[in-house]
Amino acid sequence: MYTEIKGGITAPKGFKAAGVQAGIKKSGKHDVAVIYSTVPASVAGVCTMNTMAAAPVAVSRLAFESGIASAIVVNSGCANACTGEQGLKDAKTMVHLTAELLNIAEEDVLVASTGIIGVALPMDKVTAGIKAAIAQLGEDKQEKSTLAIMTTDTFQKRCAYEFQLGGVPVRIAGIAKGSGMIHPNMATMLAFITTDAAIAPAMLKQALTEAVNVSFNMISVDGDTSTNDMASVLANGLAGNTLIETKNEDFAAFTKVLTDVCIFLAKQIVVDGEGATKFLELNVRGAVNFADAKKAAMAIAKSPLVKTAFFGQDANWGRILCAVGYSEAVADPTKISLSIGDLTIVEKGMGTAIDEQALKKIMAEDEIRVVVDLGLGLAEATMWTCDFSYEYVKINGEYHT
Amino acid sequence: MYTEIKGGITAPKGFKAAGVQAGIKKSGKHDVAVIYSTVPASVAGVCTMNTMAAAPVAVSRLAFESGIASAIVVNSGCANACTGEQGLKDAKTMVHLTAELLNIAEEDVLVASTGIIGVALPMDKVTAGIKAAIAQLGEDKQEKSTLAIMTTDTFQKRCAYEFQLGGVPVRIAGIAKGSGMIHPNMATMLAFITTDAAIAPAMLKQALTEAVNVSFNMISVDGDTSTNDMASVLANGLAGNTLIETKNEDFAAFTKVLTDVCIFLAKQIVVDGEGATKFLELNVRGAVNFADAKKAAMAIAKSPLVKTAFFGQDANWGRILCAVGYSEAVADPTKISLSIGDLTIVEKGMGTAIDEQALKKIMAEDEIRVVVDLGLGLAEATMWTCDFSYEYVKINGEYHT
Repeated sequence: MYTEIKGGITAPKGFKAAGVQAGIKKSGKHDVAVIYSTVPASVAGVCTMNTMAAAPVAVSRLAFESGIASAIVVNSGCANACTGEQGLKDAKTMVHLTAELLNIAEEDVLVASTGIIGVALPMDKVTAGIKAAIAQLGEDKQEKSTLAIMTTDTFQKRCAYEFQLGGVPVRIAGIAKGSGMIHPNMATMLAFITTDAAIAPAMLKQALTEAVNVSFNMISVDGDTSTNDMASVLANGLAGNTLIETKNEDFAAFTKVLTDVCIFLAKQIVVDGEGATKFLELNVRGAVNFADAKKAAMAIAKSPLVKTAFFGQDANWGRILCAVGYSEAVADPTKISLSIGDLTIVEKGMGTAIDEQALKKIMAEDEIRVVVDLGLGLAEATMWTCDFSYEYVKINGEYHT
Repeated sequence: MYTEIKGGITAPKGFKAAGVQAGIKKSGKHDVAVIYSTVPASVAGVCTMNTMAAAPVAVSRLAFESGIASAIVVNSGCANACTGEQGLKDAKTMVHLTAELLNIAEEDVLVASTGIIGVALPMDKVTAGIKAAIAQLGEDKQEKSTLAIMTTDTFQKRCAYEFQLGGVPVRIAGIAKGSGMIHPNMATMLAFITTDAAIAPAMLKQALTEAVNVSFNMISVDGDTSTNDMASVLANGLAGNTLIETKNEDFAAFTKVLTDVCIFLAKQIVVDGEGATKFLELNVRGAVNFADAKKAAMAIAKSPLVKTAFFGQDANWGRILCAVGYSEAVADPTKISLSIGDLTIVEKGMGTAIDEQALKKIMAEDEIRVVVDLGLGLAEATMWTCDFSYEYVKINGEYHT
């Protein structure tokens, strides 16, 4: 159990943040952020599995391996991906400068970038931005840091909770960005989580992996896994709870809240999916195993035919069954059932006599839950996705490099 | 080598066809077709791998196994998929009636359906249509049979060629339909090929498999593998060439022309892709093996971000590299190169200084060729796809069940 608190990413003790307008984005909006823990923190992170992984991802992987970090430097407007040796050098320069100004080791700095692929960072603007951000670091600048990680996002994605570990109040907060090129694999778009819980790096890594597998890895906007996905959590221990070093009760409690933070942020990314008009929750159950349930859910979530049907408010269940059919999940057309909202549309592979008016009402809603029961086993998976609209085509057809 | 000839699907000797308006389609357009060989023919076919495969697919698989067939009965407007026991019974009724009226064995009749999923066939209309079509069978009705297999297609997809086998003139012809739910796997949308070549069933099956692997299995409109995909070839031997029973020179010559027929039809399906404004040829080379080359090409072809960029005439190569990166093909960001038209855009992972005006001209064309060189091996794969437009969303968002 936890309660919502104010303060965003700096709500946990000992965290400061800042965001500035460095001029990387043509729009002039905020584009450089720094998040800082005043004491060294346990760190864990997961990164994109894309083989074209961006330079900052490669650099941050080293920091994740060490298990300790205290700062994150981020820019938006340029992904620093497919930028070769120069890109790697630029990412390292961002780390070097941040470490120098904060008087910490380079290994303790994470770096992340998001924006256009294939363009070199304007390093004069980036370095000026980092200097300005670090000069402004504070506990009241969290909103600007959230703004500075956004690209096509239309709203800020953030949450902050307080909960108890062994009777000690602990805080956890997270921010995320992303609304296109969203189909995370072992990672996510950018998500930064801070907590003042005391937890050993190895345990933190395990908690994050568990949380990401049922949150960021279960969303899809357009099926495109980005080159820059990264989710990280910094835990600085200032809450004063007993250090979590084993998979004990506190570990379970911490992982539960961390998972809720990740699911909240993941859902927010889908709600803000490029051009999205509807938020869809897909629950596939009755599968032989989790992998199959996930495969079937993924296929539905990625199908342009399913997504355009929801945009058109049409309960075209044939497209949903068709997607399950090519998903490579074990399925049987005589055992599959499907419901939309609280209406059973398909029972054992056959369409049912439905209340057309009630269905029409459900399809007109902003949030729709679809349950597919494969009728074969006990495993299930839940994914979140959105519909496919004219606006998606507009955003991505008119966005010019 | 071959020359184009007239006569469509009935150009090969001994083939008749017909197409009628049976009233299955609300539009009143042609919706029942019969294709008939006056003598028993070798037959080969490949069908969808979708586990929700439609009833006609299940029934036709039996005919393909026997190796001999002489008639195909097809309806459009209703896919007879996800229709349970009733659907299977209806598909068998179509076969039974066709066999009875043509005085041939039921095992010699193929059946195919295309249209909406999850709705039972209006069997009174279907049976009346089959009777009318068979009464009209002729060598001059091929155009109507082609019309009767179409759904959202905007034009007829057909070709007819004449070539030589051991000095004997042989004819081959094909028709196909499909413009949405196109991402064939071991099969295709509906494609029917006729030839008067003499070729044993086992050899015909091998030739078709080779042809399909580099044609129908290499196209994608929207990434959705249909429940009803089927490609078949009937070879009735009336050309009088020496029967092909081994992988000899004639087999190679026949397979080459069959492959060209399949590639022609496959490309036509993509050109008519729902809402498509551009035809894209994707060639991935320098791969470790064919499977990797195909994976990379498939990922590019399926990416909504790549497809909307082409719609917007924007050479957003970062999205192409990103798709290669998540395709699971072995790739190295420092070795990958990319060209669009005759312009090299990326060399060893880095953007090149390009002639913006020349690139703009290429991106404005209706047909665009993209070559990705992974720089690792000798294998390559070529795929065909189309862009993603407002029109695709309109067609599939406004199409109501």
